[in-house]
Amino acid sequence: MEAVYVKEEQLRSYCERAFKKYGFNEQDSKTITDVLVAADMYGIETHGSQRLEMYRQHIQKGYIEVGAQPSVAFETGISAVVDGNRAMGQVVSKYAMDIAIEKAKKSGIGMVTVRNSNHYGIAGYYSNMASEQGMIGISMTNSFPVVVPTFGRKPMMGTNPIAVSIPAKPNTFYFDVATSVAALGKVEVRNKKGVDLPVGWGVNEEGKDEVNPQHLFDNVMNREGGMHPVGGSSQLFGSHKGYGFSLLVEFLTGVLSNGVTSNHTEEDGIMGVCHYFMAIDPKVFGDPEAITEKWSTYLQELRDSEKAYGQDRIYTHGEKEAEKEEAYKKSGVPILPKTIEEMKNLANQLGMDFGIDA
Amino acid sequence: MEAVYVKEEQLRSYCERAFKKYGFNEQDSKTITDVLVAADMYGIETHGSQRLEMYRQHIQKGYIEVGAQPSVAFETGISAVVDGNRAMGQVVSKYAMDIAIEKAKKSGIGMVTVRNSNHYGIAGYYSNMASEQGMIGISMTNSFPVVVPTFGRKPMMGTNPIAVSIPAKPNTFYFDVATSVAALGKVEVRNKKGVDLPVGWGVNEEGKDEVNPQHLFDNVMNREGGMHPVGGSSQLFGSHKGYGFSLLVEFLTGVLSNGVTSNHTEEDGIMGVCHYFMAIDPKVFGDPEAITEKWSTYLQELRDSEKAYGQDRIYTHGEKEAEKEEAYKKSGVPILPKTIEEMKNLANQLGMDFGIDA
Repeated sequence: MEAVYVKEEQLRSYCERAFKKYGFNEQDSKTITDVLVAADMYGIETHGSQRLEMYRQHIQKGYIEVGAQPSVAFETGISAVVDGNRAMGQVVSKYAMDIAIEKAKKSGIGMVTVRNSNHYGIAGYYSNMASEQGMIGISMTNSFPVVVPTFGRKPMMGTNPIAVSIPAKPNTFYFDVATSVAALGKVEVRNKKGVDLPVGWGVNEEGKDEVNPQHLFDNVMNREGGMHPVGGSSQLFGSHKGYGFSLLVEFLTGVLSNGVTSNHTEEDGIMGVCHYFMAIDPKVFGDPEAITEKWSTYLQELRDSEKAYGQDRIYTHGEKEAEKEEAYKKSGVPILPKTIEEMKNLANQLGMDFGIDA
Repeated sequence: MEAVYVKEEQLRSYCERAFKKYGFNEQDSKTITDVLVAADMYGIETHGSQRLEMYRQHIQKGYIEVGAQPSVAFETGISAVVDGNRAMGQVVSKYAMDIAIEKAKKSGIGMVTVRNSNHYGIAGYYSNMASEQGMIGISMTNSFPVVVPTFGRKPMMGTNPIAVSIPAKPNTFYFDVATSVAALGKVEVRNKKGVDLPVGWGVNEEGKDEVNPQHLFDNVMNREGGMHPVGGSSQLFGSHKGYGFSLLVEFLTGVLSNGVTSNHTEEDGIMGVCHYFMAIDPKVFGDPEAITEKWSTYLQELRDSEKAYGQDRIYTHGEKEAEKEEAYKKSGVPILPKTIEEMKNLANQLGMDFGIDA
């Protein structure tokens, strides 16, 4: 199936209009749309506009309270605890990262932990908010439980992404990864394609290797099996390392915020997802320009270093996203015909124009 | 070969006396010894007292300047840049983490980056300094180049460990891992045992998989091949994730300190290793006791969760070390006869009593 290329502005308009139909105000609709379209522009379609349906379901389930706004529950000059008040994750998270950035401008650092929020889209959108202002940005979230501890079979951690953005030339260093061996979206993609999973991605309800993507997905939904952390199932390749990074995310999000860890999300009709945001002004370590210069030089040395057999390019993090964004600004965003069809149906159901040339 | 069990106090005395013979003053000898014996007591023998010979070589090469002391090159209320002045890594690092802790006591957080230092032993010793005072501690270091970027074959990053210590009951959460797929010490261990490496640990000078431990070790020393990041050689298991975590360490250590990245260590007769230390007072997020309580509950839930097939225990990070420490306090530290022999020879060369019952 050939993808349809949709102009960024049309996609943006479609999303904004849909979120207004969901009941969000103008400003919130713009905020949410900006996060989703950023994912589409980076080529991370699992976190882009095709998530409109998921968010509608989360509203229907009562996870997301349309119109709710986050508030500060506790703060110091360098830190804050934000209560998301069950508002939309993107609205909560932009609010929280704005606070982290403001504190970093005054105090050199801002650390904000968030409880009682919802699915926030791509982690890296928020870390980029800091790097766009010349700062080091960090963003993390927990989620519903997907990942098992090393030697376990019950999902106890979320996919728990960690995103870090650091100013660099020619592109921002942009590192945004799930601490699971792969994102859950990749299991869905393999399921659609009818391709087995590699051994080491997941474990089933009996605690044995699972390679069937549909079965793994069902197991995760039933909380009876799950994905492995980065490093896979065995200490031989560092499963305990991915497990540890995942736990750091749980601590900074669910624990420090006095919220919930991933194994207690989606209880009592509340999603309860928790986030963590940090902004650091590099000035507190010296001359920001010199730091960016040294960092950019190193990244170039990495890209220029000798390649493995059969490889012709070494990437540094953020290059792929920057290249996709540049290409899609010209070509439009590629969207599968099936997704286009779903978007059309949604527009009909919401009683709004489709507004996309496809 | 049966290990000899050496009493902690005898091991400590032996190391302190040896470092005084190397020319360190009483205080520095105690500091260095405390870091090495902590590693022995945790069962991390690759970073314990058997490293005495390596440090002697580093002194002879001129990497370590005996008697040199670190100094503050730049600071703010929440941060500092320390110049190690080529002093012993443990002396530099205790000094730097003490600064981070002092700043955290006053300002809620202390971040200290360090340049121009040397091999600092186990990363977790310093993060534990913070958790022993009820704080969250973080410690990282770069090193001589060992790890290749994803799709590369030339070592450009160090093993770049990340250690995090967080107060918890009954044991401190203690996470201390190399961001390489395995520690270089594990390659040495397999070499001594004559066992091949798993495919995915290393790459040779032609950029192909290397399973011979001696060959990989030689390649690393010649900077012509190296180990892979956590996640191995392919994106399928998250190589780009381990690569990214490794780069974060390079940024916080070598770049923020205005020092050198791992690929530029050991140039011009200088080791040049760089570190990063952070302490956070949990008070800036609310009630420290409630935070510890919630965290400890979650760690217990993880340990109690359902096990994978054939597994009877799920660990949380720090349990193994705490159990070893408790056991070794009673039994003494197990040391291989070959190492005992080396230690005896060193005592003879230094003209000091051996002082160990073996």
